[in-house]
Amino acid sequence: MAPIRRAPIGVFDSGVGGLTVLRALRSALPGEDFIYLGDTARLPYGTKSADTVVRYSLQCADALVARDIRCLVVACNTVSASALGALRSRYPAIPIIGVIEPGAMAAVAASRSRHIAVIGTEGTIGGGAYTAAIRRLDPAARVIARPCSLFVAMAEEGWVDGAIAESVARRYLEPIFSSDGVPGQTPDTLVLGCTHFPVLAGAIRAVIPDSVRIVDSAETTAAAVLAQLENPAPGRGAVRWLATDGAARFARVSGTFLGTALHADDIEIIDL
Amino acid sequence: MAPIRRAPIGVFDSGVGGLTVLRALRSALPGEDFIYLGDTARLPYGTKSADTVVRYSLQCADALVARDIRCLVVACNTVSASALGALRSRYPAIPIIGVIEPGAMAAVAASRSRHIAVIGTEGTIGGGAYTAAIRRLDPAARVIARPCSLFVAMAEEGWVDGAIAESVARRYLEPIFSSDGVPGQTPDTLVLGCTHFPVLAGAIRAVIPDSVRIVDSAETTAAAVLAQLENPAPGRGAVRWLATDGAARFARVSGTFLGTALHADDIEIIDL
Repeated sequence: MAPIRRAPIGVFDSGVGGLTVLRALRSALPGEDFIYLGDTARLPYGTKSADTVVRYSLQCADALVARDIRCLVVACNTVSASALGALRSRYPAIPIIGVIEPGAMAAVAASRSRHIAVIGTEGTIGGGAYTAAIRRLDPAARVIARPCSLFVAMAEEGWVDGAIAESVARRYLEPIFSSDGVPGQTPDTLVLGCTHFPVLAGAIRAVIPDSVRIVDSAETTAAAVLAQLENPAPGRGAVRWLATDGAARFARVSGTFLGTALHADDIEIIDL
Repeated sequence: MAPIRRAPIGVFDSGVGGLTVLRALRSALPGEDFIYLGDTARLPYGTKSADTVVRYSLQCADALVARDIRCLVVACNTVSASALGALRSRYPAIPIIGVIEPGAMAAVAASRSRHIAVIGTEGTIGGGAYTAAIRRLDPAARVIARPCSLFVAMAEEGWVDGAIAESVARRYLEPIFSSDGVPGQTPDTLVLGCTHFPVLAGAIRAVIPDSVRIVDSAETTAAAVLAQLENPAPGRGAVRWLATDGAARFARVSGTFLGTALHADDIEIIDL
């Protein structure tokens, strides 16, 4: 009997940031097919209220489930922080993996001082989901969480290194990591709690102490997905690209996040 | 017979940027009542396609017209660039004033060299509406138009002056105003073609030649509205505040744009 091609893995984000997660997923699961949906018409989610994020997230999931996915990856910290429960209630039969639990696991594993800093969008940080997820794993952990809103716009503009990126990173991060040099007084681990932020890792690295470990959830999320799947597919899978607006912009900005830029013709625009 | 209170003037924007226009309107027309609508659930419009901007704009206008306005001010350059025709077709009986024509008039009046620079969002600049509006007034004008996407996020973050604001302004504006010092080779007028940008005027001023005139459309738009109204109301009018999401954030960010910050309780959240 010839092997039947399996249903793809659905991945969604408010826009292009989730492409950093997709990249890690394809690296960990090269044989799988993916459908990526960026809700570019309504981005960013990070400054929106939790109710609105839940509503939009359910619409994104509906669109992917209608396309017959077998697993759903929420490649957006804001959605993972606000809407994972609502998504799992609506689709109890589909494995749904967010990025916050894997990110928290990576942080707790990386930290020796149990003093962890988390940066993200206003929505992710304001909701306190990372702090809660880290404390579930290590109730004694100290967590400092700060929004870094401008990083999103900088990543989308492609200003990911150089003097301006470092100045912005310094303004956000210096208050977290300034200390009198006493070990343990500042965090030893920094969680990039927004899928846009990994592209700024160089600028972030340049302005924090060398001893601080930077973790992002892309790789641990990919590992969590891998653990869900029996017998990952061999070969090289394909990606189907969906967005809710602006194929040209999506294609142009994708290069920063994906490593290689898409063509606008590759992207199907859908209405949610 | 006692005077009848007249219907308010409706003003809308994708978010908080239009507050710079509302501020100018209240200064020019202190006795009038206003309804301000910020479509904060779906901001920013500046990176969205023209079709989407038209659709959202019609919904904003519908919500204001349903609240019995007698004049509609489109306090958003992106909407003024893409949707003014559609708005006027739907509501032919209501005076509808955008910000681009007034901005273009102010620029043409300010420029002596007839060489004008325009900065705005990707959507406004990409559509070419400012260039077209300036050329309608002065067919021989030279226009250089450039998107400055990061300015929006910086204004909303309140990073409106200091070293980072000036570095960002320099990166965007130096290529426009760098010259070998030959008069007439660079623009003598800079149009702030986004309602967010006036709050960054100090940083912008610091990095362009002293001789360049900065114009924004807020005051000329207010003058255009004043010209539409017979007998402006005396006294001091009120503002009713509507937003589509995030009253707390709207209130917090409003201070940068309005001069005084609103309270979250003052803002009614509506669904479009």
